[in-house]
Amino acid sequence: MMRRDRILLAVTLTAVFSADLYFILLPKLRSKGLTSGHSCSCGANKLTLPPSQGGLATPQLSNWTSAPLLDGTTSEPAYGGSKLVRLFSHPLYNIQTPALGPEERLLQVEQLIDYYRRKVSHWERHMKLYSEAAALANITVTKHEVTYDPDASWLKFHLGINRYALYSHDDPTVLQLIKDMQSMTVISADYTQDEKALKGACDCTQVVKPSGHHLKLALKMRNLAKAMFKPMRQQRDEETPEDIFYFVDLQRHNAEIAAFHLDRILDFRRVPPVVGRLVNITSEVLKVTQNEDLRAVFFTSPANNTCFFAKCLYVCKTEYAACGSPDLLEGSLSAYLPGLSIAPRISIPSPWMRSYTFTGREEWEVNPFYCDTIKQQYPYNSGNRLLNIIDMSIFDFLIGNMDRHHYEIFTKFGDEGFLLHLDNARGFGKHAKDELSILSPLSQCCMIKQSTLLRLQLLAQSEFRLSDVMRESLQEDSLRPILTEPHLLALDRRLQKVLRVVHRCVRRLGKDEVITKDFVKSTVTPEAATDGTMRR
Amino acid sequence: MMRRDRILLAVTLTAVFSADLYFILLPKLRSKGLTSGHSCSCGANKLTLPPSQGGLATPQLSNWTSAPLLDGTTSEPAYGGSKLVRLFSHPLYNIQTPALGPEERLLQVEQLIDYYRRKVSHWERHMKLYSEAAALANITVTKHEVTYDPDASWLKFHLGINRYALYSHDDPTVLQLIKDMQSMTVISADYTQDEKALKGACDCTQVVKPSGHHLKLALKMRNLAKAMFKPMRQQRDEETPEDIFYFVDLQRHNAEIAAFHLDRILDFRRVPPVVGRLVNITSEVLKVTQNEDLRAVFFTSPANNTCFFAKCLYVCKTEYAACGSPDLLEGSLSAYLPGLSIAPRISIPSPWMRSYTFTGREEWEVNPFYCDTIKQQYPYNSGNRLLNIIDMSIFDFLIGNMDRHHYEIFTKFGDEGFLLHLDNARGFGKHAKDELSILSPLSQCCMIKQSTLLRLQLLAQSEFRLSDVMRESLQEDSLRPILTEPHLLALDRRLQKVLRVVHRCVRRLGKDEVITKDFVKSTVTPEAATDGTMRR
Repeated sequence: MMRRDRILLAVTLTAVFSADLYFILLPKLRSKGLTSGHSCSCGANKLTLPPSQGGLATPQLSNWTSAPLLDGTTSEPAYGGSKLVRLFSHPLYNIQTPALGPEERLLQVEQLIDYYRRKVSHWERHMKLYSEAAALANITVTKHEVTYDPDASWLKFHLGINRYALYSHDDPTVLQLIKDMQSMTVISADYTQDEKALKGACDCTQVVKPSGHHLKLALKMRNLAKAMFKPMRQQRDEETPEDIFYFVDLQRHNAEIAAFHLDRILDFRRVPPVVGRLVNITSEVLKVTQNEDLRAVFFTSPANNTCFFAKCLYVCKTEYAACGSPDLLEGSLSAYLPGLSIAPRISIPSPWMRSYTFTGREEWEVNPFYCDTIKQQYPYNSGNRLLNIIDMSIFDFLIGNMDRHHYEIFTKFGDEGFLLHLDNARGFGKHAKDELSILSPLSQCCMIKQSTLLRLQLLAQSEFRLSDVMRESLQEDSLRPILTEPHLLALDRRLQKVLRVVHRCVRRLGKDEVITKDFVKSTVTPEAATDGTMRR
Repeated sequence: MMRRDRILLAVTLTAVFSADLYFILLPKLRSKGLTSGHSCSCGANKLTLPPSQGGLATPQLSNWTSAPLLDGTTSEPAYGGSKLVRLFSHPLYNIQTPALGPEERLLQVEQLIDYYRRKVSHWERHMKLYSEAAALANITVTKHEVTYDPDASWLKFHLGINRYALYSHDDPTVLQLIKDMQSMTVISADYTQDEKALKGACDCTQVVKPSGHHLKLALKMRNLAKAMFKPMRQQRDEETPEDIFYFVDLQRHNAEIAAFHLDRILDFRRVPPVVGRLVNITSEVLKVTQNEDLRAVFFTSPANNTCFFAKCLYVCKTEYAACGSPDLLEGSLSAYLPGLSIAPRISIPSPWMRSYTFTGREEWEVNPFYCDTIKQQYPYNSGNRLLNIIDMSIFDFLIGNMDRHHYEIFTKFGDEGFLLHLDNARGFGKHAKDELSILSPLSQCCMIKQSTLLRLQLLAQSEFRLSDVMRESLQEDSLRPILTEPHLLALDRRLQKVLRVVHRCVRRLGKDEVITKDFVKSTVTPEAATDGTMRR
């Protein structure tokens, strides 16, 4: 169908490939003036690489168990300036990734550009037809022109995804993507694919995931960037009531935002970029949606605010709506990952999944030797998978998310691919509660990646202090404050608890058993690096 | 079936009839020592009747429009003692009811006693069978003995209901009933009849009344008194969010309690007695229910509290539960009216019903001459019915209840019967909001009973002040404080608004047109009393 513009395509491919080379492969050569210094927490222009040590930084592990644990009592040197810039300049955050072969990147430039061009053409044809039909049906839909932009930040973000992480630490693309999601014109709004998969059937018999879900929307920007919008359902200072089960808790837009920042600060880079935005639900959702069902759930509240219902729940629960003031509604926008057709992912039940019933308990909750069984099962019996699960459990413990029933990986990277930390909106529900059961993978398996541990130790030091760097990082979001102080301070307390669990493991089993040398090389030959630990 | 104990029945009937005579017909002769002076707000032993003036008190109406309106600025004399006792001692609260003929009482003694005895026998037989069945099915149900008590307060309350009100102002029965509901052993719990009428069908397509409803329960006491339990769903200081429609607002147990006190203070006596109680939902609901469906909605929350779901909603909305701490849960207990089989009632849509949709508006909302139409329609074209509707609208405006879609009357008393003010749990939702549309019957029809107006004026005076007598009255409930200060003070502000509406009507139409002489006689020959006004 689209064979006519081959030459233009070739030219564009070359341009995008050059951009790709420039942004993705060459950033390690970055020296000065790459970013213009706008509200950039990565402080790219202040970063310097540590002296190369055979391609890997090898920070000292000495006295790791004492200093961080005593953090609260150590004398605090008077450091000035940005803790976040200092953190991201630290050698631990500047470990070289080996040069990436084509198989180590999620997408090839040609493939994505081709996909993008087809999307643009499809949209233009579709809009033409839709506008005619809408005019006949007397529906007013605001029309926006689509721009084809081979430099689009979302495109670069997708091209940058590789077997190690969603983005590289010093990639300016992410900052641009965040900026774009925050400000770019929304040209269409719709239910998400999850929603559409229900095909209008409102399955109320499911106890799991009954709420919140149906209020998330997919927004499309002028350059066809896509973002998932989760509207604000709860005030910053509201806490999840103690009697609420984790699986019926509200989804919090600010938790989604904060989780992205934390993931970046932990240097996992497994959460797609998220930003807060005040969305005008009339002009940016109602007026641009082409979905009749979505249009039908809009209404005006007694206070004259524009609101919309959950698709399935509105018949039963009309109070279950999100309302603007009168049209503006806070929400989180999470960047979409590449479509499943070009970058398939699989969703795998977590071995530490909870029962999702009111009384049931899973084996891991009652069997202290559960990890021994897991360690013998594929794919947890080799490679980094179990260590990745443990990373994820530390992340979830820090944010207080009990709802990680599944995790996703890109099929392309196989069993050694990193785990995506998607859907974090049920974090940050109770600042005073440290749900230690979330740490079970760590406390039961007693193993942790050295790189993760070193960063946790760093963040426990007053020079960096997790709450301080998080506060600073979140300050960049336009919906600031994103987290209340008690939630920020809870991060420090929980970090101490993670380190204490590791400490106990080391005391019981010894450092060599517990701390798995990983860094980059471990992912290349994972068996060699983790073999001893795995077979324990 | 029950013919064997006729003699006992006759004896009992005589005893109860004597009690009835003593408590219901002769209280006007009351002099000293009728009640023992326990937390009785009616202060029965301090009350004295005003000098009889031809069977009716005829208080002065002079300067009624000025004094109350300037209430805030009048100098306040230093009154000591209980404002509530003083209020209830006022001649306006001690108007003689004419002697009641049998047709003016809702129930005859023999009829009710017979009904009660049959209930007791039925219960005993039923429990015998049920216990055997439960034992076989391995269900533990706490068994309580039922007592047959011809002096039971609920029996006296039912016998006292007459064509003028649910109880007489100085009836000690109500105080005893409140005490009994507050403390008596609960022997069984079940869904209410409304609930059972659904026959398990969970009609989620209804937008109206979707919430809260399904959490109310019918509790039965040792002497077979029945009360409707509405559990606490909201903290005292929580307000209904501004975007919530009145018909999906939560039901508030404290509003139910406060509405009873207000109704008594307004001397309407059209709300059945309500009292607050800490109910142990394990021992007083779960352990005594014989309803399998009800037992099935109980669960233990993550915080180890006992909770129960709404029957219909739990599949969709598991967070929609009420939880004890760990078993104790606040709630309101409202006395049941006599069963529909012995005292039928009809439910009539209010002419000022709202649309119960998100956009619809009813005629009364758009047509300023709506009342002229209503006045010509049966049953509003004669008698007190319209004046009763206006009383109800004043009551609803004071509590802020927009949800009065229907009203009920006892069929026995026909069109002249008083209106029952049932189901007030959606009042007291927003202290800062005075919803003037609730007053439409008053402002559009421009008429009010003289007796009502005089009491409102009295309550606007600093000597009594509505908020003060309400505060004092509510102080008697064990769940005190029932209302927050802003809600109490809102009563004074709203009362001023009611009086201002009347004032405007009088200025426009003159006193004689607006203020309808009623008192007791008007209900005997209502046409004569209100004819002129009605035909306006």
